[in-house]
Amino acid sequence: MSHTEPSTLVVSAHAGDFVWRAGGAIAAAALRGERVTVACLSYGERGESASQWLQGKSLEEIKAIRREEAEAAAAALGADIEFLDAGDYPLLESQEIVRQLVDIFRRTQPTVVLTHTLADPYNGDHPAAARMALQARVLAQAIGVQNSDGSFPTKEDIIGAPPVFFFEPHQGEQCEFKPDVLLDITEAFARKQQAMECMPAQKHMWSYYTDLAVRRGVQLKRNAGPNLGLAHETLAEAYVRFYPEVTGVLA
Amino acid sequence: MSHTEPSTLVVSAHAGDFVWRAGGAIAAAALRGERVTVACLSYGERGESASQWLQGKSLEEIKAIRREEAEAAAAALGADIEFLDAGDYPLLESQEIVRQLVDIFRRTQPTVVLTHTLADPYNGDHPAAARMALQARVLAQAIGVQNSDGSFPTKEDIIGAPPVFFFEPHQGEQCEFKPDVLLDITEAFARKQQAMECMPAQKHMWSYYTDLAVRRGVQLKRNAGPNLGLAHETLAEAYVRFYPEVTGVLA
Amino acid sequence: MSHTEPSTLVVSAHAGDFVWRAGGAIAAAALRGERVTVACLSYGERGESASQWLQGKSLEEIKAIRREEAEAAAAALGADIEFLDAGDYPLLESQEIVRQLVDIFRRTQPTVVLTHTLADPYNGDHPAAARMALQARVLAQAIGVQNSDGSFPTKEDIIGAPPVFFFEPHQGEQCEFKPDVLLDITEAFARKQQAMECMPAQKHMWSYYTDLAVRRGVQLKRNAGPNLGLAHETLAEAYVRFYPEVTGVLA
Amino acid sequence: MSHTEPSTLVVSAHAGDFVWRAGGAIAAAALRGERVTVACLSYGERGESASQWLQGKSLEEIKAIRREEAEAAAAALGADIEFLDAGDYPLLESQEIVRQLVDIFRRTQPTVVLTHTLADPYNGDHPAAARMALQARVLAQAIGVQNSDGSFPTKEDIIGAPPVFFFEPHQGEQCEFKPDVLLDITEAFARKQQAMECMPAQKHMWSYYTDLAVRRGVQLKRNAGPNLGLAHETLAEAYVRFYPEVTGVLA
Amino acid sequence: MSHTEPSTLVVSAHAGDFVWRAGGAIAAAALRGERVTVACLSYGERGESASQWLQGKSLEEIKAIRREEAEAAAAALGADIEFLDAGDYPLLESQEIVRQLVDIFRRTQPTVVLTHTLADPYNGDHPAAARMALQARVLAQAIGVQNSDGSFPTKEDIIGAPPVFFFEPHQGEQCEFKPDVLLDITEAFARKQQAMECMPAQKHMWSYYTDLAVRRGVQLKRNAGPNLGLAHETLAEAYVRFYPEVTGVLA
Amino acid sequence: MSHTEPSTLVVSAHAGDFVWRAGGAIAAAALRGERVTVACLSYGERGESASQWLQGKSLEEIKAIRREEAEAAAAALGADIEFLDAGDYPLLESQEIVRQLVDIFRRTQPTVVLTHTLADPYNGDHPAAARMALQARVLAQAIGVQNSDGSFPTKEDIIGAPPVFFFEPHQGEQCEFKPDVLLDITEAFARKQQAMECMPAQKHMWSYYTDLAVRRGVQLKRNAGPNLGLAHETLAEAYVRFYPEVTGVLA
Repeated sequence: MSHTEPSTLVVSAHAGDFVWRAGGAIAAAALRGERVTVACLSYGERGESASQWLQGKSLEEIKAIRREEAEAAAAALGADIEFLDAGDYPLLESQEIVRQLVDIFRRTQPTVVLTHTLADPYNGDHPAAARMALQARVLAQAIGVQNSDGSFPTKEDIIGAPPVFFFEPHQGEQCEFKPDVLLDITEAFARKQQAMECMPAQKHMWSYYTDLAVRRGVQLKRNAGPNLGLAHETLAEAYVRFYPEVTGVLA
Repeated sequence: MSHTEPSTLVVSAHAGDFVWRAGGAIAAAALRGERVTVACLSYGERGESASQWLQGKSLEEIKAIRREEAEAAAAALGADIEFLDAGDYPLLESQEIVRQLVDIFRRTQPTVVLTHTLADPYNGDHPAAARMALQARVLAQAIGVQNSDGSFPTKEDIIGAPPVFFFEPHQGEQCEFKPDVLLDITEAFARKQQAMECMPAQKHMWSYYTDLAVRRGVQLKRNAGPNLGLAHETLAEAYVRFYPEVTGVLA
Repeated sequence: MSHTEPSTLVVSAHAGDFVWRAGGAIAAAALRGERVTVACLSYGERGESASQWLQGKSLEEIKAIRREEAEAAAAALGADIEFLDAGDYPLLESQEIVRQLVDIFRRTQPTVVLTHTLADPYNGDHPAAARMALQARVLAQAIGVQNSDGSFPTKEDIIGAPPVFFFEPHQGEQCEFKPDVLLDITEAFARKQQAMECMPAQKHMWSYYTDLAVRRGVQLKRNAGPNLGLAHETLAEAYVRFYPEVTGVLA
Repeated sequence: MSHTEPSTLVVSAHAGDFVWRAGGAIAAAALRGERVTVACLSYGERGESASQWLQGKSLEEIKAIRREEAEAAAAALGADIEFLDAGDYPLLESQEIVRQLVDIFRRTQPTVVLTHTLADPYNGDHPAAARMALQARVLAQAIGVQNSDGSFPTKEDIIGAPPVFFFEPHQGEQCEFKPDVLLDITEAFARKQQAMECMPAQKHMWSYYTDLAVRRGVQLKRNAGPNLGLAHETLAEAYVRFYPEVTGVLA
Repeated sequence: MSHTEPSTLVVSAHAGDFVWRAGGAIAAAALRGERVTVACLSYGERGESASQWLQGKSLEEIKAIRREEAEAAAAALGADIEFLDAGDYPLLESQEIVRQLVDIFRRTQPTVVLTHTLADPYNGDHPAAARMALQARVLAQAIGVQNSDGSFPTKEDIIGAPPVFFFEPHQGEQCEFKPDVLLDITEAFARKQQAMECMPAQKHMWSYYTDLAVRRGVQLKRNAGPNLGLAHETLAEAYVRFYPEVTGVLA
Repeated sequence: MSHTEPSTLVVSAHAGDFVWRAGGAIAAAALRGERVTVACLSYGERGESASQWLQGKSLEEIKAIRREEAEAAAAALGADIEFLDAGDYPLLESQEIVRQLVDIFRRTQPTVVLTHTLADPYNGDHPAAARMALQARVLAQAIGVQNSDGSFPTKEDIIGAPPVFFFEPHQGEQCEFKPDVLLDITEAFARKQQAMECMPAQKHMWSYYTDLAVRRGVQLKRNAGPNLGLAHETLAEAYVRFYPEVTGVLA
């Protein structure tokens, strides 16, 4: 595989996170014909399924429901999805998960990585996912680090140094989330909406994230200036870039 | 003038700053056929001309020498240059200079702005220049803010919201300079070298900024990953982006 | 006047700021029967009246319109308003304005002060207003600092050390706005709505600030926990507290 | 139990920390008739008992002494105390301790939580305790997270989102401790004094923490202003608030 | 004058600041036989003389009293003192004062500079003094910057780049004061005490600053380790170093 | 052993780090006749030996080569070296390694400790090494913490509180590396060069670190001022001091 073919890898702590927080970016990439893979570390079965627990569902039932929803949402966005079933609340950091992520990095050869912020006082699983994603990204670059089956990677297997973007957490200011990048998702939003509707138990989030897209769109236009021919109702998602940008042109 | 034609405005406190710190970006834009304008607030006649003072030159002589050098350097880079002769050491903030900068912003319609960092404990003129550049950039957007001749701007005169990049100061860590952007200047570097050579009194800077370009180039390659077909000796300049980036694609 | 009677002083750079950003806090205080005074430093005549300029109105006409709107909005909120007509874009810091603010602090004896954040890369008038408000607050405490008519204050004239809260700017993350305080404005919101409707030229702001109140309300509930009997649709405004809180009870 | 009955939970790394750092807050709550529970993770047997080690005491003897002292101090303050005996120097983070803390959170239904700062370069046990306290606070809110005996919680068992306050470390500036809250402990101080005297091996701390209370009291008065009828010698403790404050009134 | 002869310059906003905050460092230098000069920008006549205003004293009387006290305190510490009478509350930044400070820097050739922190939300005069001191320190290095009498400096007149230390403000945490340096003032403290006693109107400060010296001394010993033969009651002052340290030995 | 005899302990994640980053400080101490010990946690066998993996060498061969090179480099610098063989990529934090480090701290009684920064987004092994070094430094001070053989330390065995310096990472700005200390290594540099040449596989680093020494030397001279009689080509290394400096003289 050529390493420069666009490929997006999303590392999501729970089964809903990639939809709410990065659905626009995912759909936009898929609409451009690019490959997107979601690595879903847990189903959010304990911490983000309160209504199902209150209905008396069992752990296995809840995991099955959440998995199905996430698969439908990924399909709506145009992404592949893999489940690592690593448990949530807490999602514990382990070398076992990191190794699986190393395999996924090498298999998908991402040119862009999306994951959670490194701080989140409301949910420790999010930074845990981010820390593991970042660790795997570094390990997957090293030819001396084995694949999880014990074999050594070839020169083609190891990855480059893809840029990492943190997606927007729920209470951004408490998570030190100061957006570096405002991504235009106007055209991709219909798909994000469809994906959100695959999560019927969190209906209140639909309008929340639609409003947020409007608000980020207003900011995008404010930062772009008035003369760029942007849509009247531009919609956007916000990201924080972790590594410096590499570019040939300032813009 | 169409507002979306690329145009770079560089606001430089002294007559050498734009060469050492942004010469690569300027030359690269010029090589792409874009317009670049340097607004040079002072000649650096008091604070950055020690050797000439020691030779017993007068203030006016020193200003003339520095102006000539700066003109030659701008020509080598392919940029226009304007001198505001606002004085240095200290460069005092004033509404008079801000108004002149508003005029320049409206006249040049920049799509990119380059200036100094907002902190510099070694040289107060640099942050003063940055503060005035940022103030003028906001004022120039407002249709209710008059031009310096008292006339009101038309809808075409006012500017959009061009991104601002801070260029690298001499002791970056003490100036809270954490690069967001590494700019490939490999092809433009020959021109930067020529421009540096227009400043013979600061010969020791030539190798300093060549080494820095090498070091930033190493970082660029490290952040880009190994597979992008970059030149063996990639050269780079580092920048800090002040406003969030607006984009259609994460990359 | 007893110094412990509740009194809120709002220092607003332009004629709209106090409505959008602190309208809920103002209305809530007024509904509790407390005195609220808005010190409005400028009318926002140059920087925040683009549509009127485009209609060809004169500076004096625009100022008159904005004043009228602000008076109506203040009345709707239940607040007094004073105009300092200090000019905008730029609002220049001056000892003249600071002195007038010292007089207002001493006259109104605030127990709470609301103003802008100290950073705002989109609008330099906002931090300028905040810096002058903070300076006046310190000077008004000193018995050796004269009133603007040259007389010295009595022991009753000088003020205590009222807490200061920064209200929410438009692009909070770029202004280092990390909320310390989420204020429940559910009951006061109807008045804020009325006040917003006194600003017909900025109709797009009405829904923007309604959405923001919803979003801050969701956060308020998330931070309060589920068991406090809060309204289903709680509405809130966010603030940053500048000085440490003084209290008899942790809560 | 009604969730809104005031209840304070203090998570203390070692057997003395809650006395020196939060004794005033604990005593004040107890004096108001509220329930206070101290979860004491270790006895400080290795790291904070140097004089006993030098006397040749055994580990078990030291733990017994420290436990007795802590019980006496808690009694003097009016608090319940529970010992988790998790070891110190280092206090290792573990899911086992976190689970026990989840149980305690659910049992005590805290409306206020006090613990250590998240940074302390002089003592790694303190941030470890804080991280576990914060993790348990989040997990205890989730209906899908089991109690440590494997049973699932009822809707009444899970907790709300109590505010968290970090108490003052020994070298605050090195621990990023910037106080948000100054708590008046003037009336409670006699009890804190009694509690401190239950720790005879650390006699030098008695005057240290008395002086600190005076100093924080001076700051409290400076921040409150002169007109509030505060005691001449007001005594205070300082805290950092971790989550935004939720309130109906700015004050 | 040889530039390497030790010389300390203290830039103090008001007539008391150098005593409370840097009295130990000043006395210690004087005891080592070194020259110390205090540049006292104002008498603190408006902002720090409340009791005298309440006694009905006039501005001139107050300035005379404060001057006399400051002279006595400087003498007790072993320092020279110069008064710039620039006014306080507010102390306004001006090029006039900066120029006078440039002269003082060139005349005293400091090898160490002490001044206020750059942030102080309780007193804007302090950061104003610091900003002017830092500006003068840079200007005084430039051979192209004239003395205040219009003459140009010789190569001997211009200064090197002396290290700058910020002394401890009253509410350090609110002023971003994170100590870099703990200075042992045990032997110099008797002189500091004498100097403090020259300020009878602020008697409550005497014990406040004695307690602070004890507390900083405890920290000094904690950071030095137990084996350095330090005095039982070591006393200290805390400082923040503004520029990086230059050294031949790590210690 | 007297505790005040100078002794430097360097905790290095991989077999090359101590050479590139602290070789000057090590050689300078050795040239002064002081003892220096390098605790080398891993050989960098997986993450920093890409060329050897590409040559098809086995893990054990690579470790042997790296060990030999590190021994030669340590000898060239004049330091002792110990290998903990804890593995790299990832270097996992463990109590086992921390305990071994506690033994080394007690055995070598360091008066200065050098290690990695606490943040490094390019290499997680570096902060892991730093965290373990800092933890061991605290534990080694406690008389209640056993040696790794289970014995208790005597009063002579436990250490003081040696200052810690972080050495310069590869992309400093991304690692929050803001130098506090610039160390003159001009005389020691020849030895550092020799040591670097013991690492032939990383030949490109030789010139990189020579250039860096030049650049840090320029900064050292800029911060020292012109009058100190420094060598024309002063060479330097940069460090961040973790704990406050303890001193008797400000300089």
